[in-house]
Amino acid sequence: MNGAVELPLDIAELSFAASGDALVRRSVLPSGVRILSEHVPGSSSATLGYWVAVGSRDEHGAEDATKTRPGRESGYGSTHFLEHLLFKGTPTRTALDIAIAFDSVGGEHNALTAKEHTCYYARVRDHDLAMAVDVIADMLTSSLLDPADFENERGVILEELAMAEDDPADVASQKLFEAVLGDHDLGRPIGGTRDAVRQVSRDAVHAHYRENYRPQDLVITAAGAVDHDALVADVTTALTAAGWDLSATARPVERRGQSESLVTRGSALSVETRPIEQVHLLIGFPGLSASDDRRLIMGVLNSILGGGMSSRLFQEVREKRGLAYSVYSFAASYSDAGVFGLYGACSPAKARQVADLMLEELRLLAANGVTPEELARANGQLSGASALALEDSDTRMSRLGRAEITLGEFLDLDESLRRLALVTADEVQALAADLVSRPLSLAAVGAVDEDVFAGFGTDHQE
Amino acid sequence: MNGAVELPLDIAELSFAASGDALVRRSVLPSGVRILSEHVPGSSSATLGYWVAVGSRDEHGAEDATKTRPGRESGYGSTHFLEHLLFKGTPTRTALDIAIAFDSVGGEHNALTAKEHTCYYARVRDHDLAMAVDVIADMLTSSLLDPADFENERGVILEELAMAEDDPADVASQKLFEAVLGDHDLGRPIGGTRDAVRQVSRDAVHAHYRENYRPQDLVITAAGAVDHDALVADVTTALTAAGWDLSATARPVERRGQSESLVTRGSALSVETRPIEQVHLLIGFPGLSASDDRRLIMGVLNSILGGGMSSRLFQEVREKRGLAYSVYSFAASYSDAGVFGLYGACSPAKARQVADLMLEELRLLAANGVTPEELARANGQLSGASALALEDSDTRMSRLGRAEITLGEFLDLDESLRRLALVTADEVQALAADLVSRPLSLAAVGAVDEDVFAGFGTDHQE
Repeated sequence: MNGAVELPLDIAELSFAASGDALVRRSVLPSGVRILSEHVPGSSSATLGYWVAVGSRDEHGAEDATKTRPGRESGYGSTHFLEHLLFKGTPTRTALDIAIAFDSVGGEHNALTAKEHTCYYARVRDHDLAMAVDVIADMLTSSLLDPADFENERGVILEELAMAEDDPADVASQKLFEAVLGDHDLGRPIGGTRDAVRQVSRDAVHAHYRENYRPQDLVITAAGAVDHDALVADVTTALTAAGWDLSATARPVERRGQSESLVTRGSALSVETRPIEQVHLLIGFPGLSASDDRRLIMGVLNSILGGGMSSRLFQEVREKRGLAYSVYSFAASYSDAGVFGLYGACSPAKARQVADLMLEELRLLAANGVTPEELARANGQLSGASALALEDSDTRMSRLGRAEITLGEFLDLDESLRRLALVTADEVQALAADLVSRPLSLAAVGAVDEDVFAGFGTDHQE
Repeated sequence: MNGAVELPLDIAELSFAASGDALVRRSVLPSGVRILSEHVPGSSSATLGYWVAVGSRDEHGAEDATKTRPGRESGYGSTHFLEHLLFKGTPTRTALDIAIAFDSVGGEHNALTAKEHTCYYARVRDHDLAMAVDVIADMLTSSLLDPADFENERGVILEELAMAEDDPADVASQKLFEAVLGDHDLGRPIGGTRDAVRQVSRDAVHAHYRENYRPQDLVITAAGAVDHDALVADVTTALTAAGWDLSATARPVERRGQSESLVTRGSALSVETRPIEQVHLLIGFPGLSASDDRRLIMGVLNSILGGGMSSRLFQEVREKRGLAYSVYSFAASYSDAGVFGLYGACSPAKARQVADLMLEELRLLAANGVTPEELARANGQLSGASALALEDSDTRMSRLGRAEITLGEFLDLDESLRRLALVTADEVQALAADLVSRPLSLAAVGAVDEDVFAGFGTDHQE
């Protein structure tokens, strides 16, 4: 497992400088497996991720029989269910063995399911990286999906969904996505619904596994104390031992398309009344897709409007008026759509005032633009925060994977910062004006009724 | 501000090796200000903390008039209230100026109030460290505590407490501390109660500020790309400019005493019924104080019982039975007392079963001990996790401050690991037996009544 393996494969390779002294290398095996690494000099640990280019948006519910392709009758929540099951054992490792492998070296080991990908990752000391490569490859290629484990894990996942259901900010966020994105695949909750999880069969999840966990779906990324050649050798050995044919020619799985897809608003207002202390408020608009040229402009806009303690939302809602503890804006981007949103949580009596104030700040930005000082500050914030974030090998591992799966390209930090510095006040204002012209939705969870928000967003005189 | 200052002060200094190549240096100014730094070669950022040795346990409520010392009529929640107010401005910086200072360089900047300390911290790139030293010194020494800001911030803090009130895991944890620690100062909630925050006056918080923010209360720690001499010079310049007399002789504020104080259980059972999906269950015992010689044994016990995916609680409750998503154990230590606890969250119908199972696992550990494999694994887990954690300058900065304030001593990692390797199975079993012999408490928040837990902890036949 330590790089002493002969590589008979015809590997396409690309190297390029990342940030600072780090070097990114990318190899594509004939089978379509992609391996990217970023060596960080001086690091004594590494973060490793196995990414599969399938997420909750790729699922089809039972009611979508007409859309279902063969082998894809997965049911909502299957991607997340499968992610849990991969920790439950293989022919050569029990669930306890897998847990011990990482616990006994003090490593972190977990997985996450997202809308467009699933990622199994570990952070370990340098000398444990080969072990991590081997264990995750085994989990990913050779999971038993034992029927008894399946039923046990159904219980665990239902508890996880119950926990999310008890988190009003989580619920409000999901309601916003459904309100903004309507029937779009990206609007569904990542974990599925509890009904879907209660009903999904082991066979459906198994079919999802067979269909989506193939060489051409797989991206492996690592950052920190990693030697690219050893990584490629270790991955190749582990996948070959699991019976995967890495020499059979296949193309990496196709990206979902880089153009924006049609988004039709689900609802303008989505309120769930709950007897709790705070109202969690979200105002959202269709945002930018990950490939949109304006995504750096969006970064600047988001920083100025709601990205820190000096942002307009923080200053107006919290600092000057004391109306909320938490208030910010956010931009979520996917391959063909996105959501731009404003968030605030406050007591019920202030809910309408906070909602109006948040929207007003976005409208002011669209109407009057931003100052040179704000533009310079956003530039400093984004470049400084990027530099700090890149000290973590987790961040580096993660951006390699996201870029490969979502965009199919990797932009190095220096190039990003060069482009960021070119963003103008006019561009920020134009983007704000574009956003406020889109159909807005408001979602709220808390001790309020819908009528609190009557006429919201339409009662404003410019 | 860059180390070019002459230091006329008679500074007591101590240097010692920390982990790896890092070197820890400690200086004590005549006034009692303590400055500790850990230089990490190769780092290009630094984390800085200003620690004040006052926390929520040092407060006295209005009803404690007999306990109140002059100048300490602070009221519960004053420490946390003050922490918020220090961000609101000084004679030379508005709240916006403070926010801009950190946002414009992409730094992280925040504060936390704990039971025995308050910490203002920042993580910045190396060339921004002198700025961070200066701005936090200004906040800490020269806060205006403006009455209008005070009222605004009261609203923000009430929202923060409302958010915590809506988090059932938070509420259950607070209930456990009160149940285990009874009237002990450590049992109170850090932020105070909402009633206390509604009532506290600006004068009481101002008195708290004057009384506790003095040279002899202050500890400054930094880790990463930090030069100790420059740090001492910058701190000295900033505090002197604020009018602090650093040459006046004073002793660092006295530790709270290193022996265990008396803990009298508040209640055996503390249940709050709420109409939510999950029950948050906590079982707790009086734990170990931070100075207890057995704290490394506690680390091993906690790792084996509930510290990871291979731990007994995770395996028995989640992996084998699918009863919970989240289940673990924890040990919280303070200068003279501690809490050891077990946590699980599950649906109401399983609450009694999960509570019984968690307690049973601790009892089994006390009755039958641990295996050599478990001992070795815990050792590997704790040493590996420590090594990984020390890659963050945040962790290094934080452990310097905690050690200085809570223990008055700093144990380097190699020495800790040497001692850890000496922990025996007998010691772990003896500690487990000691813990289960102590009065236990159960706290729960969720859709259950008290009678679900009737006889809990007393119905067990060894």
